[in-house]
Amino acid sequence: MPQELAQLLLNLVKEDAPLGDVTTEAIIGDVEVKAVLMAKESGYACCILDLAEALKVLGLNANALKHDGEYFNPGESLMVLSGNARVILMIERSLLNVLSILLGVVKTTREIVEMVHRVNPRVKVAATRKTIPCLRPLIKKAVAVGGADTHRLSLSDAVLIKDNHIAIIGNVEEAVKMAKGKVTFMHKIEVEVSNAEDAVKAIKAGADAVLVDNVTPAQLKQIIGVLEALGLREKAIIEVSGGITPDNINEYAKANPDVISTSYITMKAKPVDISLEVISK
Amino acid sequence: MPQELAQLLLNLVKEDAPLGDVTTEAIIGDVEVKAVLMAKESGYACCILDLAEALKVLGLNANALKHDGEYFNPGESLMVLSGNARVILMIERSLLNVLSILLGVVKTTREIVEMVHRVNPRVKVAATRKTIPCLRPLIKKAVAVGGADTHRLSLSDAVLIKDNHIAIIGNVEEAVKMAKGKVTFMHKIEVEVSNAEDAVKAIKAGADAVLVDNVTPAQLKQIIGVLEALGLREKAIIEVSGGITPDNINEYAKANPDVISTSYITMKAKPVDISLEVISK
Amino acid sequence: MPQELAQLLLNLVKEDAPLGDVTTEAIIGDVEVKAVLMAKESGYACCILDLAEALKVLGLNANALKHDGEYFNPGESLMVLSGNARVILMIERSLLNVLSILLGVVKTTREIVEMVHRVNPRVKVAATRKTIPCLRPLIKKAVAVGGADTHRLSLSDAVLIKDNHIAIIGNVEEAVKMAKGKVTFMHKIEVEVSNAEDAVKAIKAGADAVLVDNVTPAQLKQIIGVLEALGLREKAIIEVSGGITPDNINEYAKANPDVISTSYITMKAKPVDISLEVISK
Amino acid sequence: MPQELAQLLLNLVKEDAPLGDVTTEAIIGDVEVKAVLMAKESGYACCILDLAEALKVLGLNANALKHDGEYFNPGESLMVLSGNARVILMIERSLLNVLSILLGVVKTTREIVEMVHRVNPRVKVAATRKTIPCLRPLIKKAVAVGGADTHRLSLSDAVLIKDNHIAIIGNVEEAVKMAKGKVTFMHKIEVEVSNAEDAVKAIKAGADAVLVDNVTPAQLKQIIGVLEALGLREKAIIEVSGGITPDNINEYAKANPDVISTSYITMKAKPVDISLEVISK
Amino acid sequence: MPQELAQLLLNLVKEDAPLGDVTTEAIIGDVEVKAVLMAKESGYACCILDLAEALKVLGLNANALKHDGEYFNPGESLMVLSGNARVILMIERSLLNVLSILLGVVKTTREIVEMVHRVNPRVKVAATRKTIPCLRPLIKKAVAVGGADTHRLSLSDAVLIKDNHIAIIGNVEEAVKMAKGKVTFMHKIEVEVSNAEDAVKAIKAGADAVLVDNVTPAQLKQIIGVLEALGLREKAIIEVSGGITPDNINEYAKANPDVISTSYITMKAKPVDISLEVISK
Amino acid sequence: MPQELAQLLLNLVKEDAPLGDVTTEAIIGDVEVKAVLMAKESGYACCILDLAEALKVLGLNANALKHDGEYFNPGESLMVLSGNARVILMIERSLLNVLSILLGVVKTTREIVEMVHRVNPRVKVAATRKTIPCLRPLIKKAVAVGGADTHRLSLSDAVLIKDNHIAIIGNVEEAVKMAKGKVTFMHKIEVEVSNAEDAVKAIKAGADAVLVDNVTPAQLKQIIGVLEALGLREKAIIEVSGGITPDNINEYAKANPDVISTSYITMKAKPVDISLEVISK
Repeated sequence: MPQELAQLLLNLVKEDAPLGDVTTEAIIGDVEVKAVLMAKESGYACCILDLAEALKVLGLNANALKHDGEYFNPGESLMVLSGNARVILMIERSLLNVLSILLGVVKTTREIVEMVHRVNPRVKVAATRKTIPCLRPLIKKAVAVGGADTHRLSLSDAVLIKDNHIAIIGNVEEAVKMAKGKVTFMHKIEVEVSNAEDAVKAIKAGADAVLVDNVTPAQLKQIIGVLEALGLREKAIIEVSGGITPDNINEYAKANPDVISTSYITMKAKPVDISLEVISK
Repeated sequence: MPQELAQLLLNLVKEDAPLGDVTTEAIIGDVEVKAVLMAKESGYACCILDLAEALKVLGLNANALKHDGEYFNPGESLMVLSGNARVILMIERSLLNVLSILLGVVKTTREIVEMVHRVNPRVKVAATRKTIPCLRPLIKKAVAVGGADTHRLSLSDAVLIKDNHIAIIGNVEEAVKMAKGKVTFMHKIEVEVSNAEDAVKAIKAGADAVLVDNVTPAQLKQIIGVLEALGLREKAIIEVSGGITPDNINEYAKANPDVISTSYITMKAKPVDISLEVISK
Repeated sequence: MPQELAQLLLNLVKEDAPLGDVTTEAIIGDVEVKAVLMAKESGYACCILDLAEALKVLGLNANALKHDGEYFNPGESLMVLSGNARVILMIERSLLNVLSILLGVVKTTREIVEMVHRVNPRVKVAATRKTIPCLRPLIKKAVAVGGADTHRLSLSDAVLIKDNHIAIIGNVEEAVKMAKGKVTFMHKIEVEVSNAEDAVKAIKAGADAVLVDNVTPAQLKQIIGVLEALGLREKAIIEVSGGITPDNINEYAKANPDVISTSYITMKAKPVDISLEVISK
Repeated sequence: MPQELAQLLLNLVKEDAPLGDVTTEAIIGDVEVKAVLMAKESGYACCILDLAEALKVLGLNANALKHDGEYFNPGESLMVLSGNARVILMIERSLLNVLSILLGVVKTTREIVEMVHRVNPRVKVAATRKTIPCLRPLIKKAVAVGGADTHRLSLSDAVLIKDNHIAIIGNVEEAVKMAKGKVTFMHKIEVEVSNAEDAVKAIKAGADAVLVDNVTPAQLKQIIGVLEALGLREKAIIEVSGGITPDNINEYAKANPDVISTSYITMKAKPVDISLEVISK
Repeated sequence: MPQELAQLLLNLVKEDAPLGDVTTEAIIGDVEVKAVLMAKESGYACCILDLAEALKVLGLNANALKHDGEYFNPGESLMVLSGNARVILMIERSLLNVLSILLGVVKTTREIVEMVHRVNPRVKVAATRKTIPCLRPLIKKAVAVGGADTHRLSLSDAVLIKDNHIAIIGNVEEAVKMAKGKVTFMHKIEVEVSNAEDAVKAIKAGADAVLVDNVTPAQLKQIIGVLEALGLREKAIIEVSGGITPDNINEYAKANPDVISTSYITMKAKPVDISLEVISK
Repeated sequence: MPQELAQLLLNLVKEDAPLGDVTTEAIIGDVEVKAVLMAKESGYACCILDLAEALKVLGLNANALKHDGEYFNPGESLMVLSGNARVILMIERSLLNVLSILLGVVKTTREIVEMVHRVNPRVKVAATRKTIPCLRPLIKKAVAVGGADTHRLSLSDAVLIKDNHIAIIGNVEEAVKMAKGKVTFMHKIEVEVSNAEDAVKAIKAGADAVLVDNVTPAQLKQIIGVLEALGLREKAIIEVSGGITPDNINEYAKANPDVISTSYITMKAKPVDISLEVISK
């Protein structure tokens, strides 16, 4: 909903200018200006249309010039906007901060996905819940535009039995059994494991997926080998996570899990540099 | 105020678990557990006490183990907390996401500050308004704990006449004059310039500081040289910004401005990896 | 989180007493009283502990006397609370309104589930998204306590391709194919159909579940028959919905789907009558 | 204010789709569609115009086809709306949930009012504060459109001295006297009683109305008889409440109070079934 | 509810210190201090206990030293509080701003009430809806503590047909008749008039009160005379308002209306000077 | 941002009409009307354009007739607005309450500034943080339009070391030194003092400004004399505050400080009387 995004921008402006923009108020009158949102680095567009819609809710004219996923070079314009100079200058930094983060997520995601697919085209890359606060729906979209799987988007939409749960329950099988008895038929159940034994137990207990966490590529290969030997490989989705970076992701891809999930794409992506240039009064 | 931080955590939990944590609800009863917040990388503590206070507002017991600025090794505990397992597991990711970002800002800030001070101990490093959304007061604290200047915290607290303002007004001197006539006696006025001519004009017009933006170290040196030659060097604070990274910051430091400001410390800092481990029921 | 529920109660008090409780303010001083939350009809407890925790956040003493799912007779006490009389009287109606609705959902859900299980114990009863506004997480819990499946809790947690989607896309297979290409590996895909032909297409295209909507029990039986004949019966979960009430649910159960979903349990459940009685000063 | 209602709808969408509508996002592009809000049962329109105004605030085109109180048959259209398909599908359930509840209140209220008026046309039917949370102003309007008195809308707008107040104060007369000394001259004072003796005391002490609570029709008749005998019948409005349902309301009406108030119309009304049908791209 | 008042204080602190209190953060550590809220002018206490409760919600120790309506001299302490120095200094100005306004309303209200009662003890003084924003429930309490009638507290709790309504409807009688047919039996109806003719019409049409607006004391006397002559004087409450100040209120009181309402007590009351003094570490 | 101001108005309407405007709802249909916002006293316009923009966000037509600072006579129109009568009547009081307060601040500020400038044209008048709650950005603008300095707008934008800080730290010099070491290079440091000795210490320690608090004009003169004698007069801005009213401000102005700050202009300004008149259907 454009109104929600407009509200986010208003909240950010409030954070950025709690008592107004003293500079602009001192020196800029009620003039109308035109401005462009310009890329200073290359990347792939994301949410430009959504942000333009939100800016319209805030009373500006705004036209998105790039659709989701479209490549842009440094120096290319992403959006043209016009309206009251005071409003545009007030909103500038909030808009740039959000968008540069999103573009960074898209770009990094895309790089990681391509890296993986070069090695093993059948492996999916997925995001995690390690994300920048307050931007969850936008980050989710950026991950998707970047070509990765958005995975479990929140604690509310799929069961993931983690180490801390198992530490409290006592063992993997009991945890899976409890979950199967309680969750809705439309939710899948995944279990975090770190060795073949637990992976086997989880799948036998009925898990839809196992998240092999904090293992080396070699260990992952070995675990998948055990599952294949027992005829369990196709019974569940095999996901790997934990310490995966561009430096080691190829090795994990070669071990042939179904999914590699990494917070690198949401938490260590470098923002893409963009700026807002007033082009005419 | 601890209540504000508690509210931020509740908002993040709402974002992370809009309809509850289906896993925990399915398999974890109302048991009390003890957990530790553990560093997986080294760093310097920040806001641990504030977060512990906020967790108390949310009904948990929490003890900060590290004070602001204190060094920690991988494997060290930052906080001990105890209380209802469901609450702890619900809040885990929100807490980790915020804290790992903050610790990343502190660590990167400290590295950059040390890098600069090795070359030129009189130069301050400062943050910019390019920050992660919704965390402004915490980011501000992390920058300070990291040893940098928090600079203009918002659009409301100091005048910074930027390129877009000048594009609308027409010239630097006019802009400074207008600002001086309007802003309160307790606010300083800074002007963004990119050459010696404008720097001279700004200082002569009464600017308290000039922000030399998007120049090479050599250009910065030349501009400072001109100001010295004209006896203007001490009349204003000389700040430089724009494209400054760990790779080139030493060169800027050698050019001897008063302040180097960079969004690298707030937008490109790598989060410090931390985890929450349930240690006993 | 108890704080969230406390906030909901505060919002409801604000709605119920926007400028204070003129009666209580006029005649009740700052006395401490003890009160009980008493059932006036029989039912099964739900959220009593959660509400007691929320009342503690609001400064009252409150002890839950019944755990989730526990049966109570008319006249039994569900909670004892004590504290400032003005606060208790101010919060009374908000508390009763929410709880009586929840208890109604539990009771009706339980009746419907028992009705179905008497006829066909393997059939699950499930809720829908037709719920009373602003109480989603509590309604979800009431459904679960009543013994039904909470189903798709929100638009964000499972794919359900409905008639309006198909009206826009044009055909069932295309819609399922698009969905499979886009949604995360942890989300299931369900398709709404109203005849055997579409059910077959949906399952062949890879749907995890089909929602047979607005059919008679006889039509449901026929559709399931077709799926069995084609060897597709076990490939997807068969859910039926649409106009299902206590009067006809047995017939649907006999047709042997996997799940019967009905908004009757959330939207037509009669609130259970409860009251708050001040028992002593 | 249409903005308030738009905000309520946005909040409900947030509750219903906290991280977006995964189905629609996966398969529906940015197409424009036209849809109708269609009645599946008969009823009387309410708030259709208000909701249309709110949808306009949210960027859709919407035309109300029925004015407040207008009868509609099953199959009739209540509103036509058009706009972005994603927005319409996102908002569909929230809109239907609210409106079907409101239409249920109108329909039930009207039935109860007609039932009472057939027996005794001078008796008013009134609502109580037992209502569905978060919809108070809309429920109030639905009650009025249904032909009933909205009564005390909140704790802030009229004095109602209830059993719990009297339990704390000690006696009826003292309570009325205290209230009369404190409340504003524009507020009326009502006292809850359950026998003739207290009714007499309350009216003699100056109450504007007495709420005879939890009595049988015969007891009500007797109490009114006593008041008539003492010449007090016309000195106060006589309201009856407590356990009043369609099954017994006629008997209460025959006892000839001034007002019969019942939460049946707000808490036990069956929602009227409506649906949203996309009719063209 | 103390939580609501605590939330108001938090909102005001947010307004007053959007990015923290730079002074206190720079120079004050985590020390515990004791402070007193001290009157610098005389007055009558109001809401001291409520504010102390709210401060406790915010984690401070606070003891109210004066109860509602209690007289205090300059130099007297109203509250003692202790806790974290940073929190106390952060909240200081917000607390003082609110309380000094409230104390001003109490003091001025009391002066006006005494002035009126000296001339005519049977006349009530009442407030209007002209109040300082965002403090309505507190202002209402201050008015009551000051001895005046809080009158119509909001647009939702009593009918007041004003000049603008009559301008739209066309005439007084029609407006009263419409209102009587529509509003609940628990709400009174008042009509704004400015001459005897309309006062007569309003009362004959059934108004519970007439608000004689913008008349001189002589005109008021004449209008009341007409009503007495027609035997209508006792049929409605006679309220006068419009331009009433301490300079002319005696004359209005002598004309013997039932109520004199004036925004002077809420909008022109001088805040009572108070301060917060840190008395020990 | 017009949206923020619109939100403030909506919040005030919510406070003023929590369950709707019972009068207007009872008697006014969906007619369109035209109305004018009329001054009943003279003054200088402020925020009329901003409020008109906000009213447009709320769906009304509104045209500001006076620009910021423009003089108006009693009887002059400040704004013309048209739209749905119910909306206009609902918003009337909220709009008038806010605007009359703002106009009062402008008018009083202007009077005080003129008074000071007649005596000593080089002295600035400044506001303080003693303001009416919830209106900070608007009050700030009103102060500026009235010709005064808005001073420290919040606790976040300049350092002011006050008596309570010094009470905790122990001495002035230490406090200034700590502040200088911690605050950003763009913030000024001011110290509250009440005698020459502390003023000297503060300036020698590097304060940018001293706030001489609670002194007589004679004492102020003496302190400034001491600073001149020591050659410190030009090293810092000299501000005076505390108990300054129209009755004594001339004497302070003659003592020749740089700034006189007074809460009189924000807290004791009389609201300017304005009204909203419906002029045609």
